[in-house]
Amino acid sequence: MSDMYLDQVAAKKALTEDPLIYEFSTVEVPEEDGHLLHCISIIYPGKIGNEYFMTKGHFHEVENTAEIYLTLKGKGKLVMQTPSGECKVIEMKEGSVSYIPPYWAHRTVNIGDEPLLFFGVYRGDAGHNYGIIEKNGMKKIVQEKNNKVIITDNPKY
Amino acid sequence: MSDMYLDQVAAKKALTEDPLIYEFSTVEVPEEDGHLLHCISIIYPGKIGNEYFMTKGHFHEVENTAEIYLTLKGKGKLVMQTPSGECKVIEMKEGSVSYIPPYWAHRTVNIGDEPLLFFGVYRGDAGHNYGIIEKNGMKKIVQEKNNKVIITDNPKY
Repeated sequence: MSDMYLDQVAAKKALTEDPLIYEFSTVEVPEEDGHLLHCISIIYPGKIGNEYFMTKGHFHEVENTAEIYLTLKGKGKLVMQTPSGECKVIEMKEGSVSYIPPYWAHRTVNIGDEPLLFFGVYRGDAGHNYGIIEKNGMKKIVQEKNNKVIITDNPKY
Repeated sequence: MSDMYLDQVAAKKALTEDPLIYEFSTVEVPEEDGHLLHCISIIYPGKIGNEYFMTKGHFHEVENTAEIYLTLKGKGKLVMQTPSGECKVIEMKEGSVSYIPPYWAHRTVNIGDEPLLFFGVYRGDAGHNYGIIEKNGMKKIVQEKNNKVIITDNPKY
């Protein structure tokens, strides 16, 4: 996913070092209507250029399905957008519940200096659609500038 | 819900004292297909007779819908059963994920000496059906005997 970061020089360099940016664990539940899937995700602290480590971001394949996060540790931003380009960035911190309504794409960004750990739940039949975000990126990016977290328009979007 | 406990003398006595057994908080999400509802539940420590404080227990109105818990604090038992009477009792402890598959009724019991706190997620259209459990109780009950947690058949079932 190195091509998803703004600073391509830094991304290419990071790629040669192959840092662990995020991982997730889950248990076996059928990926079917009626069931709920869950995972514990970890995004490690770090940056590619000025951009914080983040997940790829995705829509659900079954678009009308929500997702919900409970943040267990760390500090993050949840970047969300609709197919028509409406955008929202909300805070994640220990104990916060973040709701991703149906139809919204979502990406998680670690803005802290420790791992960002969260519990996520979504419908068994939701599925993942990574293609749109892989192609266009997301409208907003989360960067560090002068030791501050800033949210700016993505010039590549 | 005092009539749901085995020891009716203790239950009637508790009723006059009106103890806080459990409470929950949630945020506003439409109760519709596609959405996910969530709540943070607290069950206080205590007993009615030998039976630990517990929730009422329910099926979902839309029966083919799961529920999932992440335990945040405390120690509990999750009592589950199907409409045909199949029964399972599983452990809840800090950090544990408990999965309630579609069709299973569920009740939560605090077996510890501190509040049992858990984050729960279920489908927006799931609904609650308390009637069946209110009428028949659940097949298994969770009691303290000689300072031990024991799970026995419910003689009133």
